[in-house]
Amino acid sequence: MSATPYQQLEQEWRRLHAFRGALSLLRWDAAVMMPRGSAALRGEQVAALETEYHALLTTPKVTRLLDRAQADVRGLEDWQVSNLREMRRQRDHAIATPVTLISRLARATALAESAWLSARRDNNFALFAPHLEEVLLLVRDKAALLGQALNMPPYDALVDEFSPGVGTADIDTIFKALTRRLPGMIGEALEAQKASPVLPITGKFATGKQRGLVLEVMKAVGFPFDQGRLDESEHPFTEGVVGDIRVTTRYDGADPFTGLLGALHETGHAMYDQGMPPSWRDQPVGRDRGMALEESQSLLLEMIVGRSAPFVRFLLPLLHKHYGVSGPEWEFDNVYRTLTRVQRGLIRVDADEMSYSLHIMQRYEIEKQLLAGKLAVRNLPEVWNDGMEQRFGVRPAGAADGALQDMHWALGSFGYYPSYALGLVIAAQLWEALRAQLPEVDALLERGEFAPVFAWLRENMHGYGAKLPIKELIKQATGQGLSANALLRYLQGKYLGDAA
Amino acid sequence: MSATPYQQLEQEWRRLHAFRGALSLLRWDAAVMMPRGSAALRGEQVAALETEYHALLTTPKVTRLLDRAQADVRGLEDWQVSNLREMRRQRDHAIATPVTLISRLARATALAESAWLSARRDNNFALFAPHLEEVLLLVRDKAALLGQALNMPPYDALVDEFSPGVGTADIDTIFKALTRRLPGMIGEALEAQKASPVLPITGKFATGKQRGLVLEVMKAVGFPFDQGRLDESEHPFTEGVVGDIRVTTRYDGADPFTGLLGALHETGHAMYDQGMPPSWRDQPVGRDRGMALEESQSLLLEMIVGRSAPFVRFLLPLLHKHYGVSGPEWEFDNVYRTLTRVQRGLIRVDADEMSYSLHIMQRYEIEKQLLAGKLAVRNLPEVWNDGMEQRFGVRPAGAADGALQDMHWALGSFGYYPSYALGLVIAAQLWEALRAQLPEVDALLERGEFAPVFAWLRENMHGYGAKLPIKELIKQATGQGLSANALLRYLQGKYLGDAA
Repeated sequence: MSATPYQQLEQEWRRLHAFRGALSLLRWDAAVMMPRGSAALRGEQVAALETEYHALLTTPKVTRLLDRAQADVRGLEDWQVSNLREMRRQRDHAIATPVTLISRLARATALAESAWLSARRDNNFALFAPHLEEVLLLVRDKAALLGQALNMPPYDALVDEFSPGVGTADIDTIFKALTRRLPGMIGEALEAQKASPVLPITGKFATGKQRGLVLEVMKAVGFPFDQGRLDESEHPFTEGVVGDIRVTTRYDGADPFTGLLGALHETGHAMYDQGMPPSWRDQPVGRDRGMALEESQSLLLEMIVGRSAPFVRFLLPLLHKHYGVSGPEWEFDNVYRTLTRVQRGLIRVDADEMSYSLHIMQRYEIEKQLLAGKLAVRNLPEVWNDGMEQRFGVRPAGAADGALQDMHWALGSFGYYPSYALGLVIAAQLWEALRAQLPEVDALLERGEFAPVFAWLRENMHGYGAKLPIKELIKQATGQGLSANALLRYLQGKYLGDAA
Repeated sequence: MSATPYQQLEQEWRRLHAFRGALSLLRWDAAVMMPRGSAALRGEQVAALETEYHALLTTPKVTRLLDRAQADVRGLEDWQVSNLREMRRQRDHAIATPVTLISRLARATALAESAWLSARRDNNFALFAPHLEEVLLLVRDKAALLGQALNMPPYDALVDEFSPGVGTADIDTIFKALTRRLPGMIGEALEAQKASPVLPITGKFATGKQRGLVLEVMKAVGFPFDQGRLDESEHPFTEGVVGDIRVTTRYDGADPFTGLLGALHETGHAMYDQGMPPSWRDQPVGRDRGMALEESQSLLLEMIVGRSAPFVRFLLPLLHKHYGVSGPEWEFDNVYRTLTRVQRGLIRVDADEMSYSLHIMQRYEIEKQLLAGKLAVRNLPEVWNDGMEQRFGVRPAGAADGALQDMHWALGSFGYYPSYALGLVIAAQLWEALRAQLPEVDALLERGEFAPVFAWLRENMHGYGAKLPIKELIKQATGQGLSANALLRYLQGKYLGDAA
């Protein structure tokens, strides 16, 4: 019996999955292991595999098979029908952006990334501006082509790549709700925490000790070390595919928490990826449902769990053990306060969970204007600083703490930022639902028993892969539509109501 | 102006080169970094990339371009004509072995490798026998197909894959010369060294210290650490491509030399690869000229240079510094004697340079009989032991020290072994020529100045890549044809004549 069109498609995607895994390893190695002088060579290897991947994904054969398979889905299981939809989606996105544009963008962003590094180091936006202009021109082309193909406004088409099924209308509604409440709540929180000052935690925390602590926490969380690794890199990230997932973090010798929180964030991604149904893992439906859900899992672990009172109780003896520390600044109250301090800060990655979304909104509004040509690149630093002053009442002294602090635009990742804010909103929704169905969660976390938490997440979210649209999945898991309310309730309770 | 057929072929091979580099990284990672539970996933990735590589290499388009380019080579430079020849060679080898056979062989050898590990651990040949039989059947098919395509006897076709342009006639001539002289020389050397007993070198040598020593030696040798790495693995190996070469070694905590000699061996491979002309590096002509020449470079550095008196004088202060050792057993005479002790041993990888070739001859004769069906797998251990007794006067107690000691046959690498003996023969030829043209070489090595040695090798050998046939290259570099005479003169002088 010869293979059906659907079966042939699964076979094609098995091959694409192998390419994706190989590409991911090439990127991981470049950031973690590769000798400094081998970057150009690696660039050629990645480009060759990406070009081949794009070619395999956009052959007429795949299109024909998709047409035939989708014309008659009788006999297919639910998840296979969804799989076909995701195959079509990948193919449509790939075919909308010609390979010449992809490779021009790859070159422009490689140059922009290195210019961004110098510009940030020298606190000099002018070094970066011409590169950002070039990247922006190409991203505009890409957004226009994608928008045409998907029948969406250009910016929405970019968002759709990262968070399929979510548009600017959803984002605007959520951001409106957050804007109405957050600034006032931040003010209240700042006022409230005056009554409980924090003793500074200082010292030297050797990388080896930090790694030991992080490994113990990750083991407790359930990270599969027989199918994954923890390493160091300049910026924390997750690479690999299910079956070999590699996370990194960055240690700060003067700060005992940065490395841990970075690792928790990436472990959140890894646990999501690892939670896919094993039999779908080499198929499009067996992948994450976009970056908003990815960030919901990383932020849930890093921000909500990782800064919760029970987690801090679990962590406390580990801090004492690995760092050999004691004293009043290492008691529960002070560590918890340190991890939950609300601040009107300049830097997104250092932001607390209450002000985090405001940092995202700032970037969202600016990148929409940049893409639409309503804001010239040369005016970006000024507009950035005005926005910070208006949102937080603080103004960056230079571009390094302002418009240059993140590398996303250098990489051409326009439309990515909303995923962070959506992720936090969704994380709060899932957390609320999980707490309702698993009332003993605090006691579990305090004992370092994470398995029931991930069992719930697996059953209600991870295990669906990309089968359901984002909003449907959230509705099913939480009983609520996508909404900022759970996040606002959570922040109110934690910071302004019944504090831990 | 559109690209010529030759230019298009260069472009095709640039892509193949990128695939080759990616595949090499996947293998390196599997042996050095990969989590234990990810082997099956990695197997799928390697298989997908290898299949694609094979497909790209054997398209009708490539054949057409080769036909057109080779029909008119006017306007091409010398090296480009050789490049065309090598392209054709790669394509002919690839097309002769169908991808189904390749993948059956890949599966069979993966199983055989793991059975070999168990069999060796349990000293039980029967565990390995059925797997070797399966591999042998497939290798026989491959040899027959290759032989047909290349118009050679099957075993010669296998040898040709590893050492193009060298056949069993050459090997037999060399082995005959060695067989006539070596047993007698070994007897004399054993007799002679009775007068100079060796003080045993014992102690614990921490991996970190061994690595420190190895790094310092590799830096002196000229290993390009900005485009390469040193790591650990169960068996030492070299992976990567020029521009990112990765060597490994294995440390033995009770032996201060194993890790160093392993690293020297692999560094010899790396320096050869790194010595190719930079502008050819992504083309077939910019690769090594087969495994006999690869092994000539690794054995030259490990056996001839690494066990020479001047090298030991260079090494001595480094041993004292890194291991913090002193005493009579760490004086020059004793270290040199330790590294140049001739022994009638059972194990190839522990063999001295005088008896090494006899270990290879043993394997060469047996694998020819296995391939021809003249020796049944079940009789292999007995025939092995008889051969050892006849050659060395020692008989292995079990298969672990006998027919199971090497993994080459498990991997399907029949026809590879001669490369080692040819390599040592060629290394001695090159060493003789180099010494004649660089008379100050001993003084240089003693000072740790390796650059002139590698400048000579680059000019006379490395820099030719795969441009010339092996025998022509050796003739040009040494003024002599391929011959065992230089090795015999070298061994005579070092072990039986004017000892250091």
